[in-house]
Amino acid sequence: MFHKDTYKQRRAQLKRQVGSGLILLLGNEESSMNYKDNWYPFRQDSSFLYFFGLDQPGLVGVINVDKDTETIYGNEATVDDIVWTGVQEPLKELAARTGVSETKPLAALATDIKNARSRNQPIHFLPPYRPEHQLRLSFWLDVPPHAVKENAYVPLIKAVVAQRSIKSSEEVAEIEKAVNISVDMQLAAAGFAAAGMAEAEVASQLYETAIRAGGRLAFPAILTVNGQILHNHYTDTVLREGQMVLCDCGAETAMHYGGDLTRTFPVNRQFSDQQKEIYEIVLHAYTSAVAMLKPDVLYKDIHLGACEKLVEGLQQIGLMKGDIQEAVAQGAHAQFFPCGLGHMMGLDTHDMENLGEEYVGYTENLRKSTQFGLKSLRLGRALEAGFVLTVEPGLYFNPDLMDLWSGEKKFAEFINYHKLEAFRDFGGIRIEEDFLITPTGSRLFGKPLPKTVEGIEALR
Amino acid sequence: MFHKDTYKQRRAQLKRQVGSGLILLLGNEESSMNYKDNWYPFRQDSSFLYFFGLDQPGLVGVINVDKDTETIYGNEATVDDIVWTGVQEPLKELAARTGVSETKPLAALATDIKNARSRNQPIHFLPPYRPEHQLRLSFWLDVPPHAVKENAYVPLIKAVVAQRSIKSSEEVAEIEKAVNISVDMQLAAAGFAAAGMAEAEVASQLYETAIRAGGRLAFPAILTVNGQILHNHYTDTVLREGQMVLCDCGAETAMHYGGDLTRTFPVNRQFSDQQKEIYEIVLHAYTSAVAMLKPDVLYKDIHLGACEKLVEGLQQIGLMKGDIQEAVAQGAHAQFFPCGLGHMMGLDTHDMENLGEEYVGYTENLRKSTQFGLKSLRLGRALEAGFVLTVEPGLYFNPDLMDLWSGEKKFAEFINYHKLEAFRDFGGIRIEEDFLITPTGSRLFGKPLPKTVEGIEALR
Repeated sequence: MFHKDTYKQRRAQLKRQVGSGLILLLGNEESSMNYKDNWYPFRQDSSFLYFFGLDQPGLVGVINVDKDTETIYGNEATVDDIVWTGVQEPLKELAARTGVSETKPLAALATDIKNARSRNQPIHFLPPYRPEHQLRLSFWLDVPPHAVKENAYVPLIKAVVAQRSIKSSEEVAEIEKAVNISVDMQLAAAGFAAAGMAEAEVASQLYETAIRAGGRLAFPAILTVNGQILHNHYTDTVLREGQMVLCDCGAETAMHYGGDLTRTFPVNRQFSDQQKEIYEIVLHAYTSAVAMLKPDVLYKDIHLGACEKLVEGLQQIGLMKGDIQEAVAQGAHAQFFPCGLGHMMGLDTHDMENLGEEYVGYTENLRKSTQFGLKSLRLGRALEAGFVLTVEPGLYFNPDLMDLWSGEKKFAEFINYHKLEAFRDFGGIRIEEDFLITPTGSRLFGKPLPKTVEGIEALR
Repeated sequence: MFHKDTYKQRRAQLKRQVGSGLILLLGNEESSMNYKDNWYPFRQDSSFLYFFGLDQPGLVGVINVDKDTETIYGNEATVDDIVWTGVQEPLKELAARTGVSETKPLAALATDIKNARSRNQPIHFLPPYRPEHQLRLSFWLDVPPHAVKENAYVPLIKAVVAQRSIKSSEEVAEIEKAVNISVDMQLAAAGFAAAGMAEAEVASQLYETAIRAGGRLAFPAILTVNGQILHNHYTDTVLREGQMVLCDCGAETAMHYGGDLTRTFPVNRQFSDQQKEIYEIVLHAYTSAVAMLKPDVLYKDIHLGACEKLVEGLQQIGLMKGDIQEAVAQGAHAQFFPCGLGHMMGLDTHDMENLGEEYVGYTENLRKSTQFGLKSLRLGRALEAGFVLTVEPGLYFNPDLMDLWSGEKKFAEFINYHKLEAFRDFGGIRIEEDFLITPTGSRLFGKPLPKTVEGIEALR
């Protein structure tokens, strides 16, 4: 964890922003796979990590803004723990590491919340995304489980988002580490893959690289010859000559900051002419988007600019036609790019997504679109120095979406459906990098990883 | 999955055993890590897998015993899924694969349960181990969340345990596959480890091997130089010359059957004399236990027999003294072996542990002990042909447990505490293999993996 002063300062700022009440920040529990004690690798809640830094399960951090006190609630280890998990650090010492002096048993929290409520002190919490938290909050606050989320406190959400959106230099250094491991993951996959292997065989190299470096996977890796399906994870599908592998993966460091990179490479040593043609369009959209990254620019505009570059390229090879800006405005490009250009990144790959995209990626004056394609843009707001985000344009040839739209003659004024047939089995191409927004522009994270056609071919 | 007739037969047997009512078998949901859509690898519920074989999230299987009908409840894919996860198999086709003809939307289940209750049809379910199931059952059955578990139906639990305890030949073949991959994991770790590496670096090879083979880890791997702590997972601790690495890991196949093997190897190429001495004691206990494996023998007796062999060996090197059987009866050996000799294995590493050890490992006539050590024996009952289980004796030198007991002069008539000092930093040794109980004895799973001192040294 960072020095305890970091967490003290973060909590002090949060207190000032929220102003009053009792703030509950719930740490995560162990998650059971197929029976209670067979756990998935523990993942702490990111907001709890941000404000307390403690990476143990079963803790709750409470900030009493009115009394200006902070308490860590948790349970001490039992005597059986000596045998099964070894002697654990006492709660008191754990709390001291984050600059909190008061600790209490977890069971005391129900009473403390009850007392606070009886003296009309408001209880503030973030929207839960794990059912065990929904259960706990329902019990503590005496509201039905389904009503817990709607009782989350919006000013607290906004305060947390405001703080977590601007990355400090020590956070940036951790993200750099994560992206560097992610680069190694990409190199391992591209160096290992060969025709005849199953996707899972190649994916094994991502785990090997991330875990060997002391980290883990930040999110379920997408490693597939079916890149046209945006979130297709690896399966037992075998790589065949002539296909491309889309690899979208990222490492998470021991501090839980992550990276998120995508490369698309040919199963053969070289791209085909058709693959090269599409690749260059995606790369050009990527380069144009990166050139626009700087404070005060709407990320939505950068997204739309990238969409125009994609349409322009598709027109040059005859797949689209008509007015470029009109095609993008109406959403015709979403046949080939049905998602967003990027998202915030930090302790979460989709940073703070659990707090609500309306607060993280949009503002009261800039609401998210409901148009197919644009509705999947997670970040639209004006950029600020300190934001960390991904840029990830792509072109996807999804035969099911082709058939759906061409059957409806949808956007027939913009799309040459008859020419699309030649791309039925093409797959998809995505290029993704991670950036820090600086006062004057942007900075690319991580050591160099090729992204030109020639550079990618040299990796194979 | 197996052929649909397998699942139909299993369900028919379950119906006969339970006799009446509505049986709910809840499949698992996706589990969120740090935000809702960032999921851990999906793990289906093992009983759902056993009776329905379907490996998709969000399904519930309902068997109406009174009406002799079976229904799969679930949700059809949406149009967005075409883009994000690809066209999904319709629910109807999915259900047909397990021989079920009726399907309904998940939302209909609440009403169907309500109707069943209104006509006084009993609703039978297994104890939930995931909070989302607790929430659902609470809502469906109109009982508070904390009261759900106690309403689980014991005759259903017993019927499921009776069926799942006896492995069919096709299950045995899957376990063989899992154990074979687990052997490769052990070989990869032992071949890779070297002084100066972090535990996590070595653990990376376990992931690489399991995932490359199309599987995954069946449980969080224990790979540590602190083998004296029974469930110590890998960390960034660095392997030093003179230490031993205890590696307890297992692969899970795509069908979700698992293996569970332990080897302990020296960081140096060779064991020290002290390490060899302890290793031979554990190996002797292991061999003696394996010789006792056959139907009708209480596994508790095999456990106690192994404990006596451990005490005998510890007496020979001066660490214990006094009457051997008395030492074991009183639990003095638990200073060195504070856990059980083994457990049932199958779709779960600790097979069916979520259904309750009192039903899986014990009977109405043989209750679990509360004595320290023996209380951690998960399997005590008489063995039957078709059981699959682990045998895993060990000797652990836990300085905190030493200090606790020697401070209390506990079992001073059996333990030579002054001689124990030389073992403070020894660590722990465990040897673990997986067995099928046959009509006449037992059969070891998996291809050969060395377990003698010489055999282990040859791996390094």
